[in-house]
Amino acid sequence: MKTVAIYGATGYTGFELIRLLLSHSRAKIAVLTSEQYADQPVDQVFSPYKGKLGKAAFGKMERLLDAGVDAAFLALPHTVSSSVVPGLIKRGVKVVDLSADFRFRSISLYESVYGVRHKSPDVAAKAVYGLPEVHREAIRRTRLAAVPGCFPTSVILALYPLLREGLIDRKGIVADCKSGVSGGGRGPALAFHYPEVEGGVRPYGLPRHRHNPEMDQELSLAAGDKVAVTFVPHLLPMVRGILATCYAASKPKVTAKDAEAAYRKAYGSEPFIRLCPPGALPSTKDVRGSNFCDIAVRVDERSRRVIVASAIDNLVKGASGAAVQCFNLMMGFPEDEGLRAAPVFP
Amino acid sequence: MKTVAIYGATGYTGFELIRLLLSHSRAKIAVLTSEQYADQPVDQVFSPYKGKLGKAAFGKMERLLDAGVDAAFLALPHTVSSSVVPGLIKRGVKVVDLSADFRFRSISLYESVYGVRHKSPDVAAKAVYGLPEVHREAIRRTRLAAVPGCFPTSVILALYPLLREGLIDRKGIVADCKSGVSGGGRGPALAFHYPEVEGGVRPYGLPRHRHNPEMDQELSLAAGDKVAVTFVPHLLPMVRGILATCYAASKPKVTAKDAEAAYRKAYGSEPFIRLCPPGALPSTKDVRGSNFCDIAVRVDERSRRVIVASAIDNLVKGASGAAVQCFNLMMGFPEDEGLRAAPVFP
Amino acid sequence: MKTVAIYGATGYTGFELIRLLLSHSRAKIAVLTSEQYADQPVDQVFSPYKGKLGKAAFGKMERLLDAGVDAAFLALPHTVSSSVVPGLIKRGVKVVDLSADFRFRSISLYESVYGVRHKSPDVAAKAVYGLPEVHREAIRRTRLAAVPGCFPTSVILALYPLLREGLIDRKGIVADCKSGVSGGGRGPALAFHYPEVEGGVRPYGLPRHRHNPEMDQELSLAAGDKVAVTFVPHLLPMVRGILATCYAASKPKVTAKDAEAAYRKAYGSEPFIRLCPPGALPSTKDVRGSNFCDIAVRVDERSRRVIVASAIDNLVKGASGAAVQCFNLMMGFPEDEGLRAAPVFP
Amino acid sequence: MKTVAIYGATGYTGFELIRLLLSHSRAKIAVLTSEQYADQPVDQVFSPYKGKLGKAAFGKMERLLDAGVDAAFLALPHTVSSSVVPGLIKRGVKVVDLSADFRFRSISLYESVYGVRHKSPDVAAKAVYGLPEVHREAIRRTRLAAVPGCFPTSVILALYPLLREGLIDRKGIVADCKSGVSGGGRGPALAFHYPEVEGGVRPYGLPRHRHNPEMDQELSLAAGDKVAVTFVPHLLPMVRGILATCYAASKPKVTAKDAEAAYRKAYGSEPFIRLCPPGALPSTKDVRGSNFCDIAVRVDERSRRVIVASAIDNLVKGASGAAVQCFNLMMGFPEDEGLRAAPVFP
Repeated sequence: MKTVAIYGATGYTGFELIRLLLSHSRAKIAVLTSEQYADQPVDQVFSPYKGKLGKAAFGKMERLLDAGVDAAFLALPHTVSSSVVPGLIKRGVKVVDLSADFRFRSISLYESVYGVRHKSPDVAAKAVYGLPEVHREAIRRTRLAAVPGCFPTSVILALYPLLREGLIDRKGIVADCKSGVSGGGRGPALAFHYPEVEGGVRPYGLPRHRHNPEMDQELSLAAGDKVAVTFVPHLLPMVRGILATCYAASKPKVTAKDAEAAYRKAYGSEPFIRLCPPGALPSTKDVRGSNFCDIAVRVDERSRRVIVASAIDNLVKGASGAAVQCFNLMMGFPEDEGLRAAPVFP
Repeated sequence: MKTVAIYGATGYTGFELIRLLLSHSRAKIAVLTSEQYADQPVDQVFSPYKGKLGKAAFGKMERLLDAGVDAAFLALPHTVSSSVVPGLIKRGVKVVDLSADFRFRSISLYESVYGVRHKSPDVAAKAVYGLPEVHREAIRRTRLAAVPGCFPTSVILALYPLLREGLIDRKGIVADCKSGVSGGGRGPALAFHYPEVEGGVRPYGLPRHRHNPEMDQELSLAAGDKVAVTFVPHLLPMVRGILATCYAASKPKVTAKDAEAAYRKAYGSEPFIRLCPPGALPSTKDVRGSNFCDIAVRVDERSRRVIVASAIDNLVKGASGAAVQCFNLMMGFPEDEGLRAAPVFP
Repeated sequence: MKTVAIYGATGYTGFELIRLLLSHSRAKIAVLTSEQYADQPVDQVFSPYKGKLGKAAFGKMERLLDAGVDAAFLALPHTVSSSVVPGLIKRGVKVVDLSADFRFRSISLYESVYGVRHKSPDVAAKAVYGLPEVHREAIRRTRLAAVPGCFPTSVILALYPLLREGLIDRKGIVADCKSGVSGGGRGPALAFHYPEVEGGVRPYGLPRHRHNPEMDQELSLAAGDKVAVTFVPHLLPMVRGILATCYAASKPKVTAKDAEAAYRKAYGSEPFIRLCPPGALPSTKDVRGSNFCDIAVRVDERSRRVIVASAIDNLVKGASGAAVQCFNLMMGFPEDEGLRAAPVFP
Repeated sequence: MKTVAIYGATGYTGFELIRLLLSHSRAKIAVLTSEQYADQPVDQVFSPYKGKLGKAAFGKMERLLDAGVDAAFLALPHTVSSSVVPGLIKRGVKVVDLSADFRFRSISLYESVYGVRHKSPDVAAKAVYGLPEVHREAIRRTRLAAVPGCFPTSVILALYPLLREGLIDRKGIVADCKSGVSGGGRGPALAFHYPEVEGGVRPYGLPRHRHNPEMDQELSLAAGDKVAVTFVPHLLPMVRGILATCYAASKPKVTAKDAEAAYRKAYGSEPFIRLCPPGALPSTKDVRGSNFCDIAVRVDERSRRVIVASAIDNLVKGASGAAVQCFNLMMGFPEDEGLRAAPVFP
């Protein structure tokens, strides 16, 4: 049994970490912090969990950085993460960070995308991008995993097998992503006000969403050459889920069978990736509340167009579930511990 | 480890039984039947569970009644349940029935409400109404538990403490219930067609919904005298959840403290009932995906009006979760086995 | 052709006034004010109307109180309305006020409910409660109509015929109201944040919502004696609409026919009230975007319970549509001018 | 005043035709047919319109083909339209057909896409594709307008200026479309059952939706060369609206200004196309209930990628509104008659 802290526990990814860790047989939540709700009982702040966490209250982070936990989940704003991670690492705490601070291989790219100076570039150099399907062995060995952004997770998992196997052109790739509103966080804003969202769909983030360079980084690694995806996110009237529909041109003579084989090769033994059976396509409904990523690929051999669709729950596989998956790998636990619950449907 | 069968596994309550039992450490799903999807793999019928149940396929019920399981969950239409329960009981199978067939103490009342002849009145006489908060000890000892209807669960749990303690008038009680669409089942119909439901709310079931006599039966037992609730269900644009708002006149001199004490007395040690903290009111969002029933009571001492609100997930505490809770009691398992998952929020 | 001003035009009721008046053949919008969006073009503030209002921009109210319009719609916060209405009236402007400031016959009741001093009690004494179905002739003659609250509209219209005809007990009346989120206004707040609302229902406003005294005032007038309704509003995952389900005890020997006759008598020639055909019940979907109020009554003669359900669009009949209806009466226009559009369904 | 018939009036496009024509000052609905609801009053079939159409009832089509109307709207299944259109034309009736039967220039393409023999190829040769922004003058002169499919409308309007001006490559164009559920019609089906739709998004129609050849036909005409769009529709949890996000490669040296100029040139004086102001992007919420198509274009000059997004209400500009627009052109009425209502927001 290991003790864990959740720093920044009152956003949606913090809540989701609590939910998942409550069913984890090897982790005990020892610390919960919140600046906004400091000293308030969890029950009052978050009514769905009343009675699940006893009389636990949220503390202020600065008072709880030296709490002696085995591992820490950081659901903090970017720049806040990088200011506390070095201290935690020094104390021997294993860190799973959900912010963007440690996702980039290039500090200068991070700084230009997020418009800030990085606070701990030395530590960043040792961080591992927390996508187990791509970097599993490195995650097992790291003390600092940087959980991918929700959109990058959906797009990288969709395209990784095709680029790794060289089955598609690196140029002209399009990723059209459809996201639920929880991806925007728990802070009220007109854009997420119920009457403004219900019944409508719209693109946003143009000309260039900050998740774009992150997916380009990983896909370029997979391809062994520079990849620059055209990525457009859309806001949908639903709470959870991302559907990524990706479009590319296949290399000459690539068949549907080739593409399917690439996915089986990459993901055949993955615990959380499910390749849709023939004829089926992914739906975010099929993965809601679970750590699954469902994927289907279609190749039109005549026109040489490839279409791949992937579906995740943005708060689970796109954030807190991926964090627990990394945590399990870093601690030597079964990779699916705390993540075995079936999707909640309907 | 006990083996269980789910007869009628491809409606929403059947799906939900599968979901809950997949996380149950003492139950193994051995039989899944479906007339509509007979011989089809679970994966194809129900895409959210693909990969969770191996290569299991649905069988036809008549071929699987003698499967040698320890317990059976029946998510079958009324009259079908009562035609197979006697045989199952005879074979020593413990039965948790989700239909209406065994909920009524009076066979003639059942027959008039459902407009059919009862097929096994002898067996019905031994059934126990499967509401553990009211009939726990009897459920422990029975071989046949009749899981309550979803609306009766929400209304009985809301009013039971007040009637048992004699704090409200038996007459003039109103139960205004708001339900998600999953309560209507998985069969497509114009009334549940997405464009007809979204963005609207309407009452239905007037003059008298068939769940009304069922709640009257149990509330009369609690009151020790005849209770006839005015019950109106409403269809809301949401999938899961029932909110029951109940109105009654308090007896003279009854205070808010008296009412609150009655709830603490009745439910203080209940594992699945949560009394809202002062100032809070229940929401179906707070219980979604879980077996909880959240309750709050308000008394206007001056006008002698009592208002009680209760919230459940109709597919969990209102159906399949209650069924698993009964199963646990009947098998001598911890009552919350398979039911410990926190609500999924948001 | 008359010129009109909309003071406070950038909340949902302001938007809806614009929408309705754009199709009004006798009114020309001459003034639009907004403190929040002062000097910004309407097109930019409110994208659905881009191109409908030319290059119009919002002005600050204080600069536009002397604009020389024939009539003014006030979609302002309470206390702000009462501070500007006397000046407008003095200038000869006919005023339709959507705030609560002029709805109460008793200034002291208003002051206790809203917790403020009334700023113009003299003018308030001349205001007419803007419910044409009850006060049509007075509205025709007034210079100041106070548009009812959305919940009072739904509840008063539901109960008025029964109380006026003395068919129900004045005591023990329950009004259980279900509202869409637009009733909460356009200001972002956690309670109206999309992920917190979708998929759930909850009561609010207990112990006593401030719309309660307003409905009591009008229903007492109708009954000729004191009526105190038990009113509980609920927030639903939808944008527009209020469904009021009202419960009462009938007087002895009152039949279903008596009740139906009372509604036909009261509303038989009303342009915006539709009595549901036999067997049908109201739905907020049936009135969305329109000024209709749909009503159905049921009497259980044996148990002497009466159930009435009414459905309105809270932004139309519950606010801006009622305002235009009052305006038409005050100006001598056809009562349904600008209000003839059919509901938008689905 | 002209008399019109709506053949097939009880699907969603039929309802919407009724709604729009009720506000049309020059058209009088004289005939409404429905096979499913023959001889039933409109009020009972379609509760939102009760009281709007007097005592009108639906008739059977075969009895009403010779009704002597000036114009007919056909909201009929494909093949049914083409079996009645020749007779109507012969009687001098102007026909606006909403089916696919007369949209194709190539009868053999129609036959292969829809898998049926065309019933009146001679008449088809004289039909005009009913997209006024492209074929206005031909529509004015025709007796038979074929209203485009909803997806083709959104995609053609998005891409037409770029292809006509030769600003993008004809190859590799992607159209990712997001549709509300009303596009699937009013017939209940599991895929449109409320609990299966709410909270999820999924692609469908792969490998090749039958709207694909239709958009290719019109875009090839615009480009003067063969265009084959990669088109993927998605089902969203909303009722109305299509958002088309289109991706293409720009020709060398094409700037953002060039692209914007092409849209202004093509649509600058169009009554129903609104180019979003700088920085804004279209949303289906902004056009709901109206005949508008909102469009925005973005060019990344460095990477030579063009992104265009368009939003329509699939039941208005995507079907019944376009039909009324064609009718107005064919009758010589103002093009926006009956179509002036502002969008309903929120």
